[in-house]
Amino acid sequence: MITGQNLVGGEWQSNNSSKYFKTSNPKTGKNLSISFEQASEDQTNLAVDSATSVFELYSNTTLKERAQFLGIIQDELKILKPQILYCYQAESSFPEGRAFGEFDRTMDQIDRFIDLLNEGSFLQATIQTQSPDLRKTLVSIGPIVVFGASNFPLAFSTAGGDTISALAAGCPVILKAHPYHAGTSEWVARAINNALIKCDLPLEIFSHLGGQSFTVGSQLVMHPNIKGVGFTGSFKGGKALYDMSQKRIEPIPVFAEMGSINPVFILENKLKSDINLAEILGQSIGLGIGQFCTNPGLIVIHDPREETDFINSLQMKIKELSLGPMVHSQIESNYNQQLIQLKNKKELLQVTASENSCAALGVTSASIFLENLDLAEEVFGPFSLVVQCKESSELLALAAKLPGQLTATILGDINDRNILQKLLPILKEKAGRLLFEGVPTGVAVTQAMQHGGPYPATTDCRFTSVGSDSIYRWLRPLSYQDCPNELLPAALQNENPLQLSRKVDGVFTNSAI
Amino acid sequence: MITGQNLVGGEWQSNNSSKYFKTSNPKTGKNLSISFEQASEDQTNLAVDSATSVFELYSNTTLKERAQFLGIIQDELKILKPQILYCYQAESSFPEGRAFGEFDRTMDQIDRFIDLLNEGSFLQATIQTQSPDLRKTLVSIGPIVVFGASNFPLAFSTAGGDTISALAAGCPVILKAHPYHAGTSEWVARAINNALIKCDLPLEIFSHLGGQSFTVGSQLVMHPNIKGVGFTGSFKGGKALYDMSQKRIEPIPVFAEMGSINPVFILENKLKSDINLAEILGQSIGLGIGQFCTNPGLIVIHDPREETDFINSLQMKIKELSLGPMVHSQIESNYNQQLIQLKNKKELLQVTASENSCAALGVTSASIFLENLDLAEEVFGPFSLVVQCKESSELLALAAKLPGQLTATILGDINDRNILQKLLPILKEKAGRLLFEGVPTGVAVTQAMQHGGPYPATTDCRFTSVGSDSIYRWLRPLSYQDCPNELLPAALQNENPLQLSRKVDGVFTNSAI
Repeated sequence: MITGQNLVGGEWQSNNSSKYFKTSNPKTGKNLSISFEQASEDQTNLAVDSATSVFELYSNTTLKERAQFLGIIQDELKILKPQILYCYQAESSFPEGRAFGEFDRTMDQIDRFIDLLNEGSFLQATIQTQSPDLRKTLVSIGPIVVFGASNFPLAFSTAGGDTISALAAGCPVILKAHPYHAGTSEWVARAINNALIKCDLPLEIFSHLGGQSFTVGSQLVMHPNIKGVGFTGSFKGGKALYDMSQKRIEPIPVFAEMGSINPVFILENKLKSDINLAEILGQSIGLGIGQFCTNPGLIVIHDPREETDFINSLQMKIKELSLGPMVHSQIESNYNQQLIQLKNKKELLQVTASENSCAALGVTSASIFLENLDLAEEVFGPFSLVVQCKESSELLALAAKLPGQLTATILGDINDRNILQKLLPILKEKAGRLLFEGVPTGVAVTQAMQHGGPYPATTDCRFTSVGSDSIYRWLRPLSYQDCPNELLPAALQNENPLQLSRKVDGVFTNSAI
Repeated sequence: MITGQNLVGGEWQSNNSSKYFKTSNPKTGKNLSISFEQASEDQTNLAVDSATSVFELYSNTTLKERAQFLGIIQDELKILKPQILYCYQAESSFPEGRAFGEFDRTMDQIDRFIDLLNEGSFLQATIQTQSPDLRKTLVSIGPIVVFGASNFPLAFSTAGGDTISALAAGCPVILKAHPYHAGTSEWVARAINNALIKCDLPLEIFSHLGGQSFTVGSQLVMHPNIKGVGFTGSFKGGKALYDMSQKRIEPIPVFAEMGSINPVFILENKLKSDINLAEILGQSIGLGIGQFCTNPGLIVIHDPREETDFINSLQMKIKELSLGPMVHSQIESNYNQQLIQLKNKKELLQVTASENSCAALGVTSASIFLENLDLAEEVFGPFSLVVQCKESSELLALAAKLPGQLTATILGDINDRNILQKLLPILKEKAGRLLFEGVPTGVAVTQAMQHGGPYPATTDCRFTSVGSDSIYRWLRPLSYQDCPNELLPAALQNENPLQLSRKVDGVFTNSAI
């Protein structure tokens, strides 16, 4: 039963003087019956103060205890799976398959952090036994605020990568629920709260606050005890949080993943020889109804004699795309407004719309694109812009003009090697992940994944928001000098009780000292 | 022969329309004869553009080439050692011993980075061979600005840790010379420039710009092609650079190490039993004429019955301290002004001044300190404030009120364990390095060192500015997906040509794939 209440420092609270908001079903266009309470300033402060009060205790839990806690979160998510998935489908346009898929992805992500905690070397324990005796390890930075994302009600929201990586790092989390799927978020929050109860951990470790306006989020980010922020969403939203965090007396890191147009460059010979490109790219554009941050929003083709069928084929593919409505009607109406504006720019691009969905494809020339660089702005949804380059120099000039991206893809065959070798160093400076086959949608949750890229794709390209390395966002190094063995954290004690691989006097070893 | 010119993109340039400034000898109070040119806006831009133009080439040099380059820098520094050390002593108050010591420290620091490059695992090569094939490594972030520090004309300046770590990371460097030791800085810049020539590397990799005002530095930080900044100095200077960097269209990281008062807590039994404390702390306060960022500026003693000789002994020690003048007369006059203000606050603290030097000691009570927290502001120089706590609760309350610090020291013996265990978790949140013996001055350049701490000690406590891990400030992760082997950076190629320890499918190995 969804209550619409806030989970404040471990307690589900009703607040009679609250503002209320509702979620809606984009498939029916109707509001759900539940009224959600917007957290008050007092509740927001209490959530942060509660998190602060248990920070020391939680950050001192063992890696095993935290791994166990994450495992119990999985168990509780499984118990509530029917309710979660029912609500997921009632509050979003996504079909059952996507609901199941995203649930599984969320569970898999938690698995990765359980593995990380069980293995332990992420603590980067480094010991120097000469005088002075210096021992360094990573420690938790403090209470973290995580914002649920609109496009991933599970995998990038309440028990998503940001929350789980922060909990794995020993940081309490205050989750600001995304107002489009506040019910789904509440069910997941219940699972986390239940897991805390079962693990006999302080319930203050996790709070869950609702709100439709920017108020709750900004109060959280400005609270002096908050030490870091995780966000996935629009440039506008992420940049506003980032700027706010810099105006605090103590600036704090805001890890905002703000999307990107993920350019795909198709080189001359590949374009001619690979007849499957339009099919593959068309599918990628429609995937998740275009609502992946790695959606290929820009396709740059090197087509000197304009002799390829690629554009026609891709237009056909887009026309035929059959997609459901977007995750939320507000997102769809924003998208449609952007499309109308693009369609009106007839002198700049030709827009082909799908007959069965909101998908669309724009086509323009390199010369027009280079003079209208606002065409490189993200259109969040199943839209992509094809830019035709007659000259390879145009393609290189275009690459050089692009802002930072999560991904950049180069599709070329062996005969394209010459131009590819000129393009690669340009794109290397632009992206967090470079692809040489396939499409950028699909973000594997592994240690080799980098999901993050130069600004404005993210606010800090030195970190990833997907994959186990995302834990480093919530940790900082601390050195102990000449510390009595029994006062050291377990990771640094002589006996190596955690059996970590540690760097001792420059050499990795699992041995005791 | 010092020219006073700027080294712009590898070329020593004279600029007739420049503003000029001079350096002075604090021992004589007289200016040196050389006139230094302030870099013009054109020169500043040219330096950054030059660095940008060679970034790709330099970032693609092999680790061996970079290690060789750093080795040749050492050789060139040795060749110019007589000139460097002569100028060092002419432009600072520091005696010959300090000049030699800091030169050696500078060389040792370079050794650490040569070792790091020869070993190579800092690239954190991570490979996942399943589909998709994903390979991640760290890559250079771009041209870096480094500001020379006033208190370390060599080890934290032109060929200091910031410059050398950035060069090791494959980033070109523009060095803004500290105006107090512009001549020393020019000699060191010549060594780096000579090393580039000998290594047949593009001279644009290193520029050296002078200027007395804030203008050159702010132009550099605001230049869109600059990707990171290293700074060691005052809170005011560091925070100004940081705030500026956040106003750019693309915010960039500014690693500002802004000093700290490095609190030393002496617990009750230790205070009674260790008769050497006053001697050791007195020496530490005077070390480097008080101009170390780890100077113990606050000494908190737990002295319930006020029966200890510690304060008397430390006052005696400070009175007898014989120190030279501070590094620069301007720094000394700032320091003396602060002292005068403190001496005038008779109702807050009692100040004992040295008879032979500018050293001084303040004494106050915990209750006064807790009501006048501006007493926790850094007094840069050989000054320390002793705070007497009658109750252990005062000591804990005081610790909780402190802002972020580079270091915090707890001196206690086995009978102090009870209070120590309460104090430790508080200080853990406040500092980058915790000491349990000795004094915080002395910062070992090793992998286990953390020189950095929570704001306002630094602007980013997740990184260190001393030790080989300081290289991570200038690197970011990049993933390659399904990349042809020959297009991968060497660190990620199947053959493992660099013979790195790499994480392949979750397991560390030196093997080829």
